[in-house]
Amino acid sequence: MEPGDVLSGGASVAAVLPAGGSGERLGGATPKQFCALLGRPLISYTVRALERINWISDIVVVVSLENIETMKSIIEKYGHKRITVVEGGMTRHRSIFNGLKIFPESKLSSCPLQKPEVVIIHDAVRPFVEEDILLKVVLAAKEHGAAGAIRPLVSTVVASSADGSLDHSLERSRYRASEMPQAFLFDIIYQAYHQCTDYDLDYGTECLHLALKYCKTNAKLIEGSPDLWKVTYKRDLYAAESVIKDTLSQQVCVTTDMKEDAVQLGFLLQETLKNEVKVHLNVSENMSFSNGMEELSWIKEFAREVKKKNILVYGLLIHYNKDDPKLQETINSAAAIISALIKDRNPELIGQLLVA
Amino acid sequence: MEPGDVLSGGASVAAVLPAGGSGERLGGATPKQFCALLGRPLISYTVRALERINWISDIVVVVSLENIETMKSIIEKYGHKRITVVEGGMTRHRSIFNGLKIFPESKLSSCPLQKPEVVIIHDAVRPFVEEDILLKVVLAAKEHGAAGAIRPLVSTVVASSADGSLDHSLERSRYRASEMPQAFLFDIIYQAYHQCTDYDLDYGTECLHLALKYCKTNAKLIEGSPDLWKVTYKRDLYAAESVIKDTLSQQVCVTTDMKEDAVQLGFLLQETLKNEVKVHLNVSENMSFSNGMEELSWIKEFAREVKKKNILVYGLLIHYNKDDPKLQETINSAAAIISALIKDRNPELIGQLLVA
Repeated sequence: MEPGDVLSGGASVAAVLPAGGSGERLGGATPKQFCALLGRPLISYTVRALERINWISDIVVVVSLENIETMKSIIEKYGHKRITVVEGGMTRHRSIFNGLKIFPESKLSSCPLQKPEVVIIHDAVRPFVEEDILLKVVLAAKEHGAAGAIRPLVSTVVASSADGSLDHSLERSRYRASEMPQAFLFDIIYQAYHQCTDYDLDYGTECLHLALKYCKTNAKLIEGSPDLWKVTYKRDLYAAESVIKDTLSQQVCVTTDMKEDAVQLGFLLQETLKNEVKVHLNVSENMSFSNGMEELSWIKEFAREVKKKNILVYGLLIHYNKDDPKLQETINSAAAIISALIKDRNPELIGQLLVA
Repeated sequence: MEPGDVLSGGASVAAVLPAGGSGERLGGATPKQFCALLGRPLISYTVRALERINWISDIVVVVSLENIETMKSIIEKYGHKRITVVEGGMTRHRSIFNGLKIFPESKLSSCPLQKPEVVIIHDAVRPFVEEDILLKVVLAAKEHGAAGAIRPLVSTVVASSADGSLDHSLERSRYRASEMPQAFLFDIIYQAYHQCTDYDLDYGTECLHLALKYCKTNAKLIEGSPDLWKVTYKRDLYAAESVIKDTLSQQVCVTTDMKEDAVQLGFLLQETLKNEVKVHLNVSENMSFSNGMEELSWIKEFAREVKKKNILVYGLLIHYNKDDPKLQETINSAAAIISALIKDRNPELIGQLLVA
């Protein structure tokens, strides 16, 4: 089922991304949505995940007043498109409501935004959302009025009595964790926010609940993947960075001044790396590795240059002699170093010449 | 309040660590408790966290039959003490019950284990448990019969109706996630397991629930720290590895053949690293860095040797000339490389000679 087929019937879809949180659970000064992962703010990964989906027409990012400039500079730096930045409210619900209010009730020629049929609400701190689940919640919202991603509970949920003792525990299989993304017919969620009380706006957190309470809409619950998890604690930032590293391009370029050597070495490396890493070949007759490492300062300069394009280059010297009985050992060592460099993706070590 | 004071009144404490899980949520073949973090199995970190607490007399690790030898070899390799390995059952509750049954009803001269007054139940996949929370749950269990760590819910919990739609959502502030460690008067939890049904043993997961249902014991709920989280998904392994790296010793040793240079360089490095890393000085008159890198293969050999003791050594060549106008730039580069090496703690790069 192609998204185009499903959504071509005039269904317009926009997304609201509440990002007004202060990140107090993270224990740091920077709100977590602005923390850098491999040098890039978390929210930029989430925005990218939404903007690469062509059937989402507009993305409204709601941030607190003091972060509006930060957000605008992120949009400029990473070239994000179709984004509108809106000032948030004091609470999550007030921020989402502000995001919804930006869409005009009727078509105004002065406003570039158009009220969508379906609106996705997603968290800025869930960067790994895939098109698949977004499409599912949007289609379910079109049919049922509201829909949201759920996950199995990781821990048993308990209710405590007034004295801090266990009152009862919930049967884990009957309940689910409500996650994001969620999607709504715009009119339903907008009406729910308009009708809901100040108490809801100040203390509530769950949009599905508002749709049920104020519009009698029982949201469709859609099982999501583990990738939907919310970056909440410092350990989640570590995890997110590792996940991002896993998905980055992994390539090795073998350069020698002898074509035969390059082919052989490339083959051995590719085999030892078990095809997890692409190996390219490059024969350069102007290059010689025989004059000692002192002359190889060009690696550092080259690495510094290409790092600007987010490509990390490390040098690795492999003593290749096809008759050497220890050749496989050297290749294993080279493969281990390559895997390690790729895994850590450490920008401070670029341009170093390592020896296998 | 010293643990010794509190527990000196003859209260004996043992721990049961269920580790029979298959780790299917992790998507890998190795159960997560046996996955390696920095080369060491996760469960070894958890066992260490318990065994370094001197008021826990015995630690019973419950593993599935096929992992008994693996567990025994881990105990031997890492020198764990006071551990008894017990074969698990088909479910979590059956495994915990097996762990409890190992303690004899009455004092047997043939059995080195003694029935404790209080038993801690903890998860093998929660390696960062601290003495503080263990003491709190043990003291509360002594007083109330049962106690368990709780955490705020990260997501709203919802109940679904038969057709997969939202039935209702729980008010997040009224509920908590039940985590580990938990502790019980031994007789209470043992009696609960003896009385409970096969259905409980096969489908239940929550010990606090059994104590309430079968012994009318309302467990005391104790707010725990975020560190108690359970390694569940692959991303949690990434996070755990990063947390462990954060806590490891961070030292730099400056070696030159000129005492004055070492002191100056050490001072500059320490200052640039902002005291996050300890800098040691070492002057060796037998060592010369002036003969080119070819002669420095000793670094690799030395690094390979000390890696056996889990010490990772990297070489870093710093061109030190106190009159060089670019000296601070070089020092900055050295500090950045040192921080990067410490952060990644990559064993495959040991023995490499990097250049600042």
